[in-house]
Amino acid sequence: MELKKALEILESHDNFIILTHRRPDGDTIGSAVALCLGLRQLHKTAYLYKNPQFTERFAPILTGLCTDSIPESATVVATDVASDQLICFGCKQLSGKIALAVDHHASHTLSAEHHLVKPECAACGEIIYEMLLSLGVKVDAAIADALYIAVSTDTGCFKYANTTASTLRIAADLLDCGANTARINKIFFDTKSLSRLMLEARLTTTMEFYADGTVAICKMPQKWLTELSIDEDAVDSISGFARAVEGVKIGIMIREIEGGAGRISVRTGPEYDACAICSKLGGGGHAAAAGCTVDGGIEKAKDAILTVLRERGISL
Amino acid sequence: MELKKALEILESHDNFIILTHRRPDGDTIGSAVALCLGLRQLHKTAYLYKNPQFTERFAPILTGLCTDSIPESATVVATDVASDQLICFGCKQLSGKIALAVDHHASHTLSAEHHLVKPECAACGEIIYEMLLSLGVKVDAAIADALYIAVSTDTGCFKYANTTASTLRIAADLLDCGANTARINKIFFDTKSLSRLMLEARLTTTMEFYADGTVAICKMPQKWLTELSIDEDAVDSISGFARAVEGVKIGIMIREIEGGAGRISVRTGPEYDACAICSKLGGGGHAAAAGCTVDGGIEKAKDAILTVLRERGISL
Repeated sequence: MELKKALEILESHDNFIILTHRRPDGDTIGSAVALCLGLRQLHKTAYLYKNPQFTERFAPILTGLCTDSIPESATVVATDVASDQLICFGCKQLSGKIALAVDHHASHTLSAEHHLVKPECAACGEIIYEMLLSLGVKVDAAIADALYIAVSTDTGCFKYANTTASTLRIAADLLDCGANTARINKIFFDTKSLSRLMLEARLTTTMEFYADGTVAICKMPQKWLTELSIDEDAVDSISGFARAVEGVKIGIMIREIEGGAGRISVRTGPEYDACAICSKLGGGGHAAAAGCTVDGGIEKAKDAILTVLRERGISL
Repeated sequence: MELKKALEILESHDNFIILTHRRPDGDTIGSAVALCLGLRQLHKTAYLYKNPQFTERFAPILTGLCTDSIPESATVVATDVASDQLICFGCKQLSGKIALAVDHHASHTLSAEHHLVKPECAACGEIIYEMLLSLGVKVDAAIADALYIAVSTDTGCFKYANTTASTLRIAADLLDCGANTARINKIFFDTKSLSRLMLEARLTTTMEFYADGTVAICKMPQKWLTELSIDEDAVDSISGFARAVEGVKIGIMIREIEGGAGRISVRTGPEYDACAICSKLGGGGHAAAAGCTVDGGIEKAKDAILTVLRERGISL
């Protein structure tokens, strides 16, 4: 029923403005681009709102699709935007005017007239694919590229546990539709900035191990990020670095943040509950990935998290 | 026709011994395990020949399937073994006695009575999957695990350019059959040894850049491998390290080998032909990945490869 209503909105309206989320990723952008191209194929006027945080990597698929002028009569659609706080910067005036929100976050709370939310989908792009097929859009190579970017980036190229059989079948369809998967995979999954590699090198050489190598701690002083010009995206994605070391069951990243506090990220295997560990220090999250913040700097944060582990029966 | 003949052999024979290749990978092992389990489901006696190079990572799927005693009446099948030179160590007596070779290498030259070779398949596991379905085998979770390991490892978790729509659809089927993809992906694609990370750290901090950062050279002294206990597998897979740096179009790894020569690996983007570059120094390979060896050590090898690049019009 939700799908039917969503299709009705797209079919009966025009002058679409599509919103992406803050710190936009492949799924929000790929979904928005595919939807925009699909609507144009149906002879609608459609643009993405020009998110000021769009990055260079996405420039090729965004060419000719962005605008920052929004007509009064615009039909606003949001793709992969989970909450009002996550609407991209620069379009506050559109808050409360969203006609349709398409999303896959179980935590979806975005204010919108209609919602099509499917938490069972690994990527918002999967929902957009289904919508475009239902609308009779021909998925050409450009649309397939955008949807493949959406689906592959939100699943770590089909590596993460959220990948379903349906995800893989959609990716197969997109290959058949002409998606240039070799080029996309190279850009998104086989390229690292030198500064990211330098950061990894520093983290590796300073990593500390406890409990027969099953607990690993990385410490990241704030000055490293400045010295290496590391952006927020890169910092986020490195939280699981220690956990990826062979034999590590609890991987901990302690990052010095503004004001000198220690931001702790915990990643665990199925044997441990990261959320239970972090909640002892006032944080939270999921069973496999959680976080908390401890005042007083990196070393104090380290002592605090080690104390929690000891209390939970881990001999360090 | 080939498939039909292959199925006939499996159906009409018994006492199967399945061979894997030297330095066995996920595809040769996963294919052999799936075939072995499938044959047992059909009430045949089937074992893998116990390849002395099987590693710890594969122990869980190999339990109860290996033998090193080979009956006179054995029906020998080889999975993913491209040539006689690649038959695993310890079973020379089986050379020339292979009843059926199943493989996906275009370069397949293995001596065998019958061959089922499909170079269009990204992994040998794809061919085994088709065979098992044709034989009426029920693909249970254990078979699905083995085939998923085969298919995912030979495609870099669906990242490499050899991944086809069919590969992805087979992976989707295997998920439906109960493959524990989250666990497998964690082990094979989200885990690195500390020694591998230490090697990457050293390579990063010593990397040299030329031609506005489009050419990168890594140098790997032999003593690093000893100091860090790096095995051959890890060395092989690190050849593309320099090429993965953002902006790099020609990534070069120079490794000091026995006798002090420099083994050069070249990885290129579509703009350059790695094989043409390496053939100037007596080497060869593919357009995107090639190699050559230069006597006289790492620095001499570096000078030689830089001279070749200059001759090809690249201003360094």
